[in-house]
Amino acid sequence: MNEDDVARSGQLALLLEVSAYPKPGNVSRTHDFAETSYEHFLASAVAVYPVLREAAARGFAWKGGGGVGVGELVRRAVEESVAWQSGGNTHFGALLLLVPLAVAAGSYKPDLDPGLLKRRAEEVVQNTSVEDAVELYRAFPKAKVKVRAGVPEFDLTDAGGVREIRASGKSLHEILEISASYDLISRELVGGFEKTFRYAELLKDWIKNKDKERRVNDAVTNAYLRLLSEERDTFVEMKFGAEKSESVRRRAEEIVNSGCKRGEVEEFDEELIKEGVNPGSTADIIAAALFVALLGGLRV
Amino acid sequence: MNEDDVARSGQLALLLEVSAYPKPGNVSRTHDFAETSYEHFLASAVAVYPVLREAAARGFAWKGGGGVGVGELVRRAVEESVAWQSGGNTHFGALLLLVPLAVAAGSYKPDLDPGLLKRRAEEVVQNTSVEDAVELYRAFPKAKVKVRAGVPEFDLTDAGGVREIRASGKSLHEILEISASYDLISRELVGGFEKTFRYAELLKDWIKNKDKERRVNDAVTNAYLRLLSEERDTFVEMKFGAEKSESVRRRAEEIVNSGCKRGEVEEFDEELIKEGVNPGSTADIIAAALFVALLGGLRV
Repeated sequence: MNEDDVARSGQLALLLEVSAYPKPGNVSRTHDFAETSYEHFLASAVAVYPVLREAAARGFAWKGGGGVGVGELVRRAVEESVAWQSGGNTHFGALLLLVPLAVAAGSYKPDLDPGLLKRRAEEVVQNTSVEDAVELYRAFPKAKVKVRAGVPEFDLTDAGGVREIRASGKSLHEILEISASYDLISRELVGGFEKTFRYAELLKDWIKNKDKERRVNDAVTNAYLRLLSEERDTFVEMKFGAEKSESVRRRAEEIVNSGCKRGEVEEFDEELIKEGVNPGSTADIIAAALFVALLGGLRV
Repeated sequence: MNEDDVARSGQLALLLEVSAYPKPGNVSRTHDFAETSYEHFLASAVAVYPVLREAAARGFAWKGGGGVGVGELVRRAVEESVAWQSGGNTHFGALLLLVPLAVAAGSYKPDLDPGLLKRRAEEVVQNTSVEDAVELYRAFPKAKVKVRAGVPEFDLTDAGGVREIRASGKSLHEILEISASYDLISRELVGGFEKTFRYAELLKDWIKNKDKERRVNDAVTNAYLRLLSEERDTFVEMKFGAEKSESVRRRAEEIVNSGCKRGEVEEFDEELIKEGVNPGSTADIIAAALFVALLGGLRV
């Protein structure tokens, strides 16, 4: 496992996640959004390779403590993503998860012990600084991420936000602890990537135990639905409020409980696409779970 | 344009080519083969990145003459491809075209003059040695390529082929000149990448002039049909003979002449898939054309 293996695992995770279908509400190989197409996601996954490789190389050299530059790496990955495609935000949330995981994968050998990878990724996030926070805030407008209105910690529409962050002296980890109350990705980052690693195991089991035909696609789709049934999606909640995100969660739960029948999943997909309801945070965590599974030796 | 830009352009070309649909007879985002799925192609495109980057880096340092190692690079790219996926041959023909193009792109600045890129790629192929031929022959069994029966130059099922090649003293270029009589890819390699560069221009024009929606997908599909209407596909001819490959060519010609109507293309696709007729060489050249277009600044 060298830095190219880490970058390839991260990139393939992004590609397998976006390709999976039917994946209710999100871009897949069979669904584009009005402004963001499947091809934009392909190009974005291609674009971030050099940054994922550098994250792994820095992790390999890292002795712990500060200075690994997670915020800068995320900002640069976002810059590469938008330089290679014109569809706007594709992978911001996924990159927030993938970059610390890539750093961790570079410094440990995940094929030996997934527990070490998890602890190391946690350590990477805990050791972030105020500069990491500043860099991340710089990445927001580049990524064209829709930010929750009325949440002062994430008022990032102008440079004032950056000055305030620096003045506050808060590390990225401290800021994520605040946003964890309402944001799935932040919760995952400060909570030791609990869902990421749990779903990585599920994905490996499901792919191993399924028929050959369509096994990867179905495992990804089912993992996505299962996670959507467990947690209200942040993207949905920001755009449509808590009631809608809860009803999406409950609908996913019904579908999972009745065995993820293809017809029901397709119907759910059509409805969400029509309403513009895209559970993006759920997809980001599944991409991270695929990354961990591939780092652990999963192959298609 | 650095070596990562070259590798990313090559990789994105492979991804956009395989994703395009409906693409009569070949794997696309909507069609798997029995043993080789769309996901196998995604993983293969991910796998070859480090080799494409090294090809560009060697090209950057190359002063002309021998020693750039095209054969070795193709063999290693094939090894990476099959290490990352279990679907067998995905990109052998495409890699034969992409590797010399990546070397050429590393040594010149293709964003300045596509003519220079074309001449340099031609020079890379002309300067191959007997060692390049030996390496390529070593790659054949790894790639699980179906080789034309009864063509002694391509009897590569055992190590005897390698010994014979070395004894013959023929360079890769000289061998390709022989196989050019019946093989589209060989013809392209010894003929200065004529179709590759012509279709790169067509793709750029079509993508620029089309409506935003589905423009990349449709441009790739139409380019594929146009090329299929011009030349009998080698893959089809090897498996089914000259009569079949000519009838496929003529059918593509009819579809192109009546404006590539979606219904007709889909019907043609279903027929070829049912018969197992896959025009793989045509797809390989379109992948190379996409590579050149992306090197020249095309973005999705």
